[in-house]
Amino acid sequence: MKVEPLAEFLLYSAARAQLVSEKIQPALAEGCIILCDRYYDSSSAYQGYGRGIDLKAVHFINDFATRNIAPDLTFLLDIDIETMKKRQQWDGVSLDRIEAEHDTFFEKVRQGYLELAQLHPERICVIDGCSTIDDISDEIWKHCWKIIQGG
Amino acid sequence: MKVEPLAEFLLYSAARAQLVSEKIQPALAEGCIILCDRYYDSSSAYQGYGRGIDLKAVHFINDFATRNIAPDLTFLLDIDIETMKKRQQWDGVSLDRIEAEHDTFFEKVRQGYLELAQLHPERICVIDGCSTIDDISDEIWKHCWKIIQGG
Repeated sequence: MKVEPLAEFLLYSAARAQLVSEKIQPALAEGCIILCDRYYDSSSAYQGYGRGIDLKAVHFINDFATRNIAPDLTFLLDIDIETMKKRQQWDGVSLDRIEAEHDTFFEKVRQGYLELAQLHPERICVIDGCSTIDDISDEIWKHCWKIIQGG
Repeated sequence: MKVEPLAEFLLYSAARAQLVSEKIQPALAEGCIILCDRYYDSSSAYQGYGRGIDLKAVHFINDFATRNIAPDLTFLLDIDIETMKKRQQWDGVSLDRIEAEHDTFFEKVRQGYLELAQLHPERICVIDGCSTIDDISDEIWKHCWKIIQGG
């Protein structure tokens, strides 16, 4: 069965709504720092820019599903499509439904992420994903400390 | 696991988005008449009025998920909560997660449906669900013929 784009987006939104209500909100209430691998920018990039779903609607539903809980900081580890494809082959695992998409899809997703970063420079840090692990780690920590120390 | 209200609503919306794109749109394009047991009014009534999710957001996402495909006619078979509970016992099947809700929930759902009917009198026909099967059938057919004949 082919999952329709709107259904795909709403399923991710449902998963995120459950995560926010069940885990993130209670943890924030306890004063925790939340570290998430992917949040609503991924829906904007993959389902909005990638699948072509109306971005206004995507942003509205993103905010709805997450009860307007926005990240303080978002790290976008950016690589080109060619590098991405090489890295996908590293682990030898077969590609999932989205990983198996065409290059043009990933190009739209990447440009979407970069546009989001331009629209939200106060929150989204673009990091060169081709740097070394140590350099990437240093840069992420630098931004984190700044915000943890309230700077 | 407790399904959170927003997640529940988004899951129903995802299912409906898939149904509309995969089945309803192609059938409409072929000129078919579509008969649905439940559509987005159920989300408005159960998740909007029943669970208390913001109605403006519910209506927005209903329209989004169904690509603004509205029914020409909707039949609301209305019964009181006491009758509903008696009928639930008829088939002896155990109640599902939503059927097992408290009376106050169903009262909100019922009032929600009735309010929707008041807001959309051109589309929603309220039918007394305590009438005989024959009378209910006659009334539904009466409305259907009117719209099929373009009246």
